[in-house]
Amino acid sequence: MMDDEGFGMLGRMMVALEMIEGCREFGPLIPEVRTNLVYARSHAKIRDDVLAIDGRITVVEGRPRAAGRVRFGASSHMARLVIELRKVDPSLRAGIDFTNTPHLTTWLADHCRTKGWIFSVIDRRGEPEEIREAEAASMPWKVAEAVRAAGGKAPKIFYETGAVGKEPVSVLVGRDPIEVADQACEIARKYHGPG
Amino acid sequence: MMDDEGFGMLGRMMVALEMIEGCREFGPLIPEVRTNLVYARSHAKIRDDVLAIDGRITVVEGRPRAAGRVRFGASSHMARLVIELRKVDPSLRAGIDFTNTPHLTTWLADHCRTKGWIFSVIDRRGEPEEIREAEAASMPWKVAEAVRAAGGKAPKIFYETGAVGKEPVSVLVGRDPIEVADQACEIARKYHGPG
Amino acid sequence: MMDDEGFGMLGRMMVALEMIEGCREFGPLIPEVRTNLVYARSHAKIRDDVLAIDGRITVVEGRPRAAGRVRFGASSHMARLVIELRKVDPSLRAGIDFTNTPHLTTWLADHCRTKGWIFSVIDRRGEPEEIREAEAASMPWKVAEAVRAAGGKAPKIFYETGAVGKEPVSVLVGRDPIEVADQACEIARKYHGPG
Amino acid sequence: MMDDEGFGMLGRMMVALEMIEGCREFGPLIPEVRTNLVYARSHAKIRDDVLAIDGRITVVEGRPRAAGRVRFGASSHMARLVIELRKVDPSLRAGIDFTNTPHLTTWLADHCRTKGWIFSVIDRRGEPEEIREAEAASMPWKVAEAVRAAGGKAPKIFYETGAVGKEPVSVLVGRDPIEVADQACEIARKYHGPG
Repeated sequence: MMDDEGFGMLGRMMVALEMIEGCREFGPLIPEVRTNLVYARSHAKIRDDVLAIDGRITVVEGRPRAAGRVRFGASSHMARLVIELRKVDPSLRAGIDFTNTPHLTTWLADHCRTKGWIFSVIDRRGEPEEIREAEAASMPWKVAEAVRAAGGKAPKIFYETGAVGKEPVSVLVGRDPIEVADQACEIARKYHGPG
Repeated sequence: MMDDEGFGMLGRMMVALEMIEGCREFGPLIPEVRTNLVYARSHAKIRDDVLAIDGRITVVEGRPRAAGRVRFGASSHMARLVIELRKVDPSLRAGIDFTNTPHLTTWLADHCRTKGWIFSVIDRRGEPEEIREAEAASMPWKVAEAVRAAGGKAPKIFYETGAVGKEPVSVLVGRDPIEVADQACEIARKYHGPG
Repeated sequence: MMDDEGFGMLGRMMVALEMIEGCREFGPLIPEVRTNLVYARSHAKIRDDVLAIDGRITVVEGRPRAAGRVRFGASSHMARLVIELRKVDPSLRAGIDFTNTPHLTTWLADHCRTKGWIFSVIDRRGEPEEIREAEAASMPWKVAEAVRAAGGKAPKIFYETGAVGKEPVSVLVGRDPIEVADQACEIARKYHGPG
Repeated sequence: MMDDEGFGMLGRMMVALEMIEGCREFGPLIPEVRTNLVYARSHAKIRDDVLAIDGRITVVEGRPRAAGRVRFGASSHMARLVIELRKVDPSLRAGIDFTNTPHLTTWLADHCRTKGWIFSVIDRRGEPEEIREAEAASMPWKVAEAVRAAGGKAPKIFYETGAVGKEPVSVLVGRDPIEVADQACEIARKYHGPG
């Protein structure tokens, strides 16, 4: 079942997860729905091709902490997101989600400009009604919308405008979970909330 | 700091938590924002008077699992809810939150009728705009609304209609976390989703 | 199954365990066979009347950490020790074990003098051969030996001289796990190894 | 710090650890001093070149469970053992230790015959006094003794006769932690104690 690609991926995820867990400043960026960190195989087609953290990452004793183990198939939402985005840019294999507020959005837009990263938004007000109800069906629309709003390219960071009953989140994607964890921790250390 | 009431409460919470963790059927009722179980001191006034689970309860390996330890002050939202509700009925000292869907709402209404329990709803469409923005300020309004909709009495189970950016949850309250865990597990075992 | 005594005991054990886990200096005093902390019911007769830590306490990331949950029946050896010792002094309901070396023994003898505590030793060279083989049978002999060597009184701290295949440990007993944890942490903070 | 060899090793250790944790029958083979599973880099020279489980593996709720994370440098004793044994056979990079009793020793000798494995013993009665006291210094002697008793070859399984204050353990070595976990679990499933 496991092959050399899988072993290496598992090792990289462990190191990336320790980076997140060691970054106390990331705690305030973890949303109520928790954070997941995912890593797709180079030819990922389905959820079981994507490593993720079982139970996601929560704040415990003021620090980010994984609820369970790193394993293939542990994510549904973020796994679909990365699989869909790779149809536009196959180099993207990893992603992490975190909180979203108007204040952070403004800050992230600036941060992306500084970094030369593409920033985008999924405005869910444009989402067709029949898609919105079906969680799985909505992912292709959402990713297409993020790419469309970014002028046809896969964005580095994007967020969703809130929908009824859904906490809005930001997403950062990259080639590798260590890169993604490093970039997410840099954001967490540099960003200071509205207060 | 700790007194005999606190030690006994801690012991009861540990037993209640093990009941939840041992109830695999409760897993599907844990919302994206996770479940918390809270227990207020008999004269609770502030958040630090309320025991809760640090990091809340998440699903790991298909089962409910506490992210961290049981400790005073670990909950903000559910702690405020119980403190507010106790102004109406001081016997209520414990509560648990879980998922909410139209299908479950209908089922819960029936379940409450069978049990002779008061069921209520917080319709957030009636929430004043200036309150909605301030998380802390909205709790008195929400509890007042749940009580009003229940004809002036503290309800046993109630739920919120979804607001933008907020996952709707159901809440069950009682005198003791063991009672509350027992009643929540009974619901989890009896309820079968819409499928 | 659980009663008010049990709930209160569970709460006290949780607080005592957090004291141990919060005492980094206790780490070097945890033996290879790990540390257990036990707390017996006021009328404890059997192992299931004694709270202990499932999997005991180990050093993880340089700090003491409980392997599993606090539960009745989780200890065999330390539970029997406290049950046996209570036949001599029923006020003794809690105990903790930790490492034993010649250097620590000398230090503990001094510490006990300062505190006015009875210090004792179980010299296993005097243990009858037929008892030594049977773990359960050897406890009455060991406790009797510790009491005999202490002049007929229950000691506060005692240790075993090493036997073949057995790591020697020190034991500290008291009325309550919080008292015992407090006294063990004080030893850990004051004692500096031979180096 | 981490390289591709390290990531792949970490992944293999995670899978091997899950095999051990999933093997309930291995629980009774975990000694009081706990079990460690180690994996050395292909050119391991020092302890930090060897992956191991921080806090080792303990029995919790009747099952083997890692106390902490898999990390380089987490083992002292088993790491030295594998580094020393690799001087005789560099293909050996992984090892696990487990309980040792006369009954199991007899069974293991048979099991090794069936498998065509070399079985050996470290008779610590022959250990020079000046070495015995120094934990680090005794490893070259112990491994040399195990190899000598095996007729000059690196054994597959070996055990130590008990010394005063030391719980005797058995050790199984191999090329990879997955191989080693698989072989240890097979032993655990086939062996039935003396009872």
